[in-house]
Amino acid sequence: MAKISWLPIPRGSHFSLSNIPFGIITTASSQSPRPAIAIGNQVLDLAVFSSNDGFSALPSIHPYISVFSQPTLNAFAALGRPVHRSVRDYLQDIFMDDTKHPQILKSNTMLQQIALFPLKDVQTHLPMQIGDYTDFYAGLNHAYNVGVMFRGAANALQPNYMHLPVGYHGRASSVVISGTPIRRPWGQILDPKVPIFTQSKKLDFELELGAFVCSANKMGEPIPINEAESFLFGFVLVNDWSSRDVQAWEYVPLGPFNSKNFGTTISAWIVLTDALEPFLGKGLENKTEIQAYLEEARDENVYDINLEVDLTTKSGTTTITRTSSLNLLWSFPQMLAHHSITGCPMQVGDLLASGTISGTEPGTQGSLLEQSQNGKEALKLQGGDERKFLEDGDMVTIRGVCGVDEDALVGFGECIGRIEPSIKL
Amino acid sequence: MAKISWLPIPRGSHFSLSNIPFGIITTASSQSPRPAIAIGNQVLDLAVFSSNDGFSALPSIHPYISVFSQPTLNAFAALGRPVHRSVRDYLQDIFMDDTKHPQILKSNTMLQQIALFPLKDVQTHLPMQIGDYTDFYAGLNHAYNVGVMFRGAANALQPNYMHLPVGYHGRASSVVISGTPIRRPWGQILDPKVPIFTQSKKLDFELELGAFVCSANKMGEPIPINEAESFLFGFVLVNDWSSRDVQAWEYVPLGPFNSKNFGTTISAWIVLTDALEPFLGKGLENKTEIQAYLEEARDENVYDINLEVDLTTKSGTTTITRTSSLNLLWSFPQMLAHHSITGCPMQVGDLLASGTISGTEPGTQGSLLEQSQNGKEALKLQGGDERKFLEDGDMVTIRGVCGVDEDALVGFGECIGRIEPSIKL
Ligand SMILES: [Ca+2]
Ligand SMILES: [Ca+2]
Ligand SMILES: [Mg+2]
Ligand SMILES: [Mg+2]
Ligand code: NI
Repeated sequence: MAKISWLPIPRGSHFSLSNIPFGIITTASSQSPRPAIAIGNQVLDLAVFSSNDGFSALPSIHPYISVFSQPTLNAFAALGRPVHRSVRDYLQDIFMDDTKHPQILKSNTMLQQIALFPLKDVQTHLPMQIGDYTDFYAGLNHAYNVGVMFRGAANALQPNYMHLPVGYHGRASSVVISGTPIRRPWGQILDPKVPIFTQSKKLDFELELGAFVCSANKMGEPIPINEAESFLFGFVLVNDWSSRDVQAWEYVPLGPFNSKNFGTTISAWIVLTDALEPFLGKGLENKTEIQAYLEEARDENVYDINLEVDLTTKSGTTTITRTSSLNLLWSFPQMLAHHSITGCPMQVGDLLASGTISGTEPGTQGSLLEQSQNGKEALKLQGGDERKFLEDGDMVTIRGVCGVDEDALVGFGECIGRIEPSIKL
Repeated sequence: MAKISWLPIPRGSHFSLSNIPFGIITTASSQSPRPAIAIGNQVLDLAVFSSNDGFSALPSIHPYISVFSQPTLNAFAALGRPVHRSVRDYLQDIFMDDTKHPQILKSNTMLQQIALFPLKDVQTHLPMQIGDYTDFYAGLNHAYNVGVMFRGAANALQPNYMHLPVGYHGRASSVVISGTPIRRPWGQILDPKVPIFTQSKKLDFELELGAFVCSANKMGEPIPINEAESFLFGFVLVNDWSSRDVQAWEYVPLGPFNSKNFGTTISAWIVLTDALEPFLGKGLENKTEIQAYLEEARDENVYDINLEVDLTTKSGTTTITRTSSLNLLWSFPQMLAHHSITGCPMQVGDLLASGTISGTEPGTQGSLLEQSQNGKEALKLQGGDERKFLEDGDMVTIRGVCGVDEDALVGFGECIGRIEPSIKL
């Protein structure tokens, strides 16, 4: 049964009472970035809420109340999973029709007036200060599809692929909030045998899921696989924009660099790990025997998030991808255990991305590289447009949502970016 | 002619009056990290110096004087090259025997007593908060030597190598200050056909030069090649510790990851770009025609730093590498222009490393991978030890110094790390 709120929450909202995602906002009345939660079509400003005794009935948070006036969620995240859980539970109660504490907000119209804002009127900002950003490659179907394209079916997957979560360090400074325009990059590409300098002609998106780290391990000390989930604050949608022509020329032998570092977009609202817990399922099967440091006690370790990608061109909007985040070979705890097995120090605010999530059928693939077969076949779009790769002005919108009860969805909202023409050089 | 100081500076000191490198220190009397310069066998505590009117004769710095009480040099770096220059010039004058301002420090024994500490008594800390760390691969001889080893002489260099500064994003959180112990990492390696989980058996060092960024470009706007030098605050020595067996198994197709993220050591004192200016020379010749965005107006764009690596084992200390940082195909301005050509936002505090610097002769190579031919030939060391790769307890010391006048050296001091045994798992 869906929880019932005194606040009107539209059916189908990503931000039901079952969710309570955290973000950073500014408003017309205050340009200071500060924490908030999204609920229905509203946001609750946690800086205003906390400084007006909103947390008076949750004494355990009082020593840490300053986390709600910080410009990022790092300090809140660093308090750890049990604290996130108690704050989320408390805020759920505050918005319940049968709340134990009606005086705090339900019957406190003065506080409602200063602490609740329409979602459409707030500006969202990067929710965390990101120390390091790592992009994995755990989407088996994507890795396979791309491998077939470049090496044939027999050698599609590299020998290491089933043994370890392949990943690479990304560019943290290039991570931007949903809505930020993405400029088409310049770069070197092969045309066809000699390198030329040009605007990228194969600009692509990648549909990914991201996780923020909320605890640090000591340098030199790996995070054990069965403790790794407690290091995960929450999740966002990720669009790992990719320049395929730049990537093809640059990536041997040290991996993608310029093809990825011009921008990576994340959705604004961090869905807490606890909110996703009910949606755990089995990821893709791995028949390979894996090393003990990667073996999780539990069987269901990957989230079942319904993912969609819309491509908007001048001619209209087409949903070009529908898939599930179950299409991962490795879980986030496995990624974290592998990342730190060397003793690599993970820090509060680090972002891990899953790698491109694709299904196996047409219309389930999380990149244009796969959908257009590297530019061989054009996608037919609403209104008559066709696309092999992204053109200037195109907008990519990723959505993700868990659940079937329209009154109890746990969703991410949208992760949006529009392509701007290259800068004149 | 060497500049003469009223402070006794030993002949052969890396920290002559011609240098004035900046770092972050704590002392027994104060555990607050704060800026300092190294001079001879002493350091000048800039927090104490500035709060006792040490900068009274440099009015232009007064609006920014708080940068000298910060726990990192980021705020000072962000003031820009002209300010670094004026502060360095001023501090040089303060220590000159014929200083224009003797009352500030030369004849102010009270301030000398509270602001000067013996170098051996201070603890150094990471000088910058590092946002992103990028490791390039600009050491042509290293790339060639390694390529010959794995692919033969005909295919030693990848097709892109002479066309662009190959690089990859590294792990910023793993960068540590000289002296920090480095734990031998665990990881997956091929043995010989199936992956096993083990302590790395091929632990190596990499001799590199690093640069810190002091200005930010706007996202989407490349840094023009001939402005790039003004984005470089200064330089440090870098040891990019590498696990060769982990690297060999993991690195296809997305590049090195766990093989590098367990630790990267930098030297403590940042030698300002201005201090290195007199030591510019020609790097390695590139006969390939390069794209205009990489073409520098000047011909001499690489520093001539004499580099040495000592390997200390139980049996003694052996200098195993002697080379020059002229052994680079690409300059740091070229790396920065390439890094940002996509619009990648560079930020104050970013660290760029050169890639391994090797000469062409035996005894000039900047890694054990090259010196032992990937473990085929053991190096003979002082006192009878032999090494193919690093063993537990081994210590690697990198030194770098410019110039021949023993009274006017511009040096980096040392970049040191000792290998600790793997953690028990
Ligand atoms: Ca990706
Ligand atoms: Ca390196
Ligand atoms: Mg990206
Ligand atoms: Mg390293
Ligand atoms: Ni002289």
